[in-house]
Amino acid sequence: MQKLRKYIVKNEFQAYLPQRSDFEIVREVILPIRNGEFLVKTEYVSVDPYMRSFATDLSVPYDQFGFQVGKVIDSKNPDYPKDSYVVSHSGWRDYVVLDGQPDEIFNIVPYKPQIESLPISLAIGALGMPGITAYLGLLEICAPRTGEVVCITSAAGAVGSLVGQIAKLKGCVVIGFTGSDEKVDVLKRDLGFHYAFNYKTETDVKETLRSVVKGIDCYFDNVGGDLASAIMECMNEQGRVAVCGAISTYGERTSRHKKLKMPVSVKIEAFSFTQWEWPKQCEALNNLKEWVKKGTIKAKETIANGFEELPDTFVAMLKGESIGKALVKI
Amino acid sequence: MQKLRKYIVKNEFQAYLPQRSDFEIVREVILPIRNGEFLVKTEYVSVDPYMRSFATDLSVPYDQFGFQVGKVIDSKNPDYPKDSYVVSHSGWRDYVVLDGQPDEIFNIVPYKPQIESLPISLAIGALGMPGITAYLGLLEICAPRTGEVVCITSAAGAVGSLVGQIAKLKGCVVIGFTGSDEKVDVLKRDLGFHYAFNYKTETDVKETLRSVVKGIDCYFDNVGGDLASAIMECMNEQGRVAVCGAISTYGERTSRHKKLKMPVSVKIEAFSFTQWEWPKQCEALNNLKEWVKKGTIKAKETIANGFEELPDTFVAMLKGESIGKALVKI
Repeated sequence: MQKLRKYIVKNEFQAYLPQRSDFEIVREVILPIRNGEFLVKTEYVSVDPYMRSFATDLSVPYDQFGFQVGKVIDSKNPDYPKDSYVVSHSGWRDYVVLDGQPDEIFNIVPYKPQIESLPISLAIGALGMPGITAYLGLLEICAPRTGEVVCITSAAGAVGSLVGQIAKLKGCVVIGFTGSDEKVDVLKRDLGFHYAFNYKTETDVKETLRSVVKGIDCYFDNVGGDLASAIMECMNEQGRVAVCGAISTYGERTSRHKKLKMPVSVKIEAFSFTQWEWPKQCEALNNLKEWVKKGTIKAKETIANGFEELPDTFVAMLKGESIGKALVKI
Repeated sequence: MQKLRKYIVKNEFQAYLPQRSDFEIVREVILPIRNGEFLVKTEYVSVDPYMRSFATDLSVPYDQFGFQVGKVIDSKNPDYPKDSYVVSHSGWRDYVVLDGQPDEIFNIVPYKPQIESLPISLAIGALGMPGITAYLGLLEICAPRTGEVVCITSAAGAVGSLVGQIAKLKGCVVIGFTGSDEKVDVLKRDLGFHYAFNYKTETDVKETLRSVVKGIDCYFDNVGGDLASAIMECMNEQGRVAVCGAISTYGERTSRHKKLKMPVSVKIEAFSFTQWEWPKQCEALNNLKEWVKKGTIKAKETIANGFEELPDTFVAMLKGESIGKALVKI
């Protein structure tokens, strides 16, 4: 009887990098397909950073998940005829029996890739989920405008390398961070990034950025951690950060959502009372007045006496010596 | 002839704290008021952190600006009759002749405070611009919901002390950071903050926050710098940060907008390709395909060969050894 091979993760990954011994290849008998089923022979299997990060939330043993593309070699499902190609999130395996139901992790129904005469491997790369992630993450979340500065980390990766090229197409100034001088060269010479830096040898990321641009308008973050923090400190007003991943934190053994050094989604907004019209300000004042009159809110004051006291009162306030509103009675 | 006194800033502030000698009191003759003018005798003058931060953008000498409230003692303007109170942004001075025109910094027309029988000093505090700032900054920018966690820095200040109390009124869990144990006591005992901490003696702000709450939903930032960064790292998903001030940076001698350690307004948004519907994903794939076909975009791949290579390829990708999409041909 024909058998398939698949990888299971049998030991929890102990550090950022898994060990070869954390994986085990298991053989399974391929049962004859039933009505509605079809058998796919895998051609390409994807390896991606999310395989490391999602691992933290799973209990061993589990089948290693992942996208793959393969050819239907036997079918009792008219939607997936023999010899057609199928992309599915079926994991690391050389054969898979599917029935057209969505997978458990991404809820994606196996589908026929529309890649025409291009290499089939692209169906799980630039023309698959990494491509969609790059395209929509950049254009929908960051929404860069012509002339804006777009910064990308893991810039030579599957997603980052596309983000940079799309940003360039859109007329942006493109800056990439990557982890080796060789990849810096690829970014600049091969992919046309305006600037590329090896973050491992950069001593001051903020200085580096400020030496080439005034600030960052869009940051496509794949790394999290200190590098992301440094880049975020260089954001321009009204900047947009698309948080795609946080690979620098994937070795940490806390739950996935706790690991991001920056929050997953947060709106940071500077404001001044002057941005609201006077009627809105009056509404605020009226509510405050009612609260103060009722004693619901205490209006603390630190009042100094005399015109001459103004500078010292100002300095005392700046030193944190007053409580509530600092003012001077004239 | 009657004279008024006003402060001018004659030396640029050299550090965070101004020197007494940076200020000079100047006397000016009060000319008889003309039609449309009125003379105000100052009762209270405000001192606020923005007086330090705006200073960086001004050239000495300049009249010290600021809100004040006073009584009209002579008037040739029917909108501002004798004996009425007027709030204006007229600076540090004991008398001022006004004509009802808006000031240069905030563009605010002098106005009669609506404080009924409450102390007139509140007109430049809880029932003035600091009150409006606290109320609208919290309720419009942070928009906290009942049960959410609101964190405030400079929590015992004019604005912060109100923000915390309003947040408590709205049913939030309120955490304040301030600069002395005395003020911590005021926040907890007098103003009803659920938690208050002295940031000067906190060794690990993130640990402290995580010991009392799961995360922060709303952060009302008055300080910027390291304390703000640490708090922002504790934000919950969909958190909102209202950046009101950045007092920790006001000593730095760069232009005001460059000084904020965090950007003034930025949207940080995590995403996954799964958040978009399939038609939107297809649109992405179609555009990518056209670009790849035309060669506008290069789809870099690092392809290993053989089922057995999967774990090593995965690890190599995590180590940054691949360029573009990493995959394995089966």
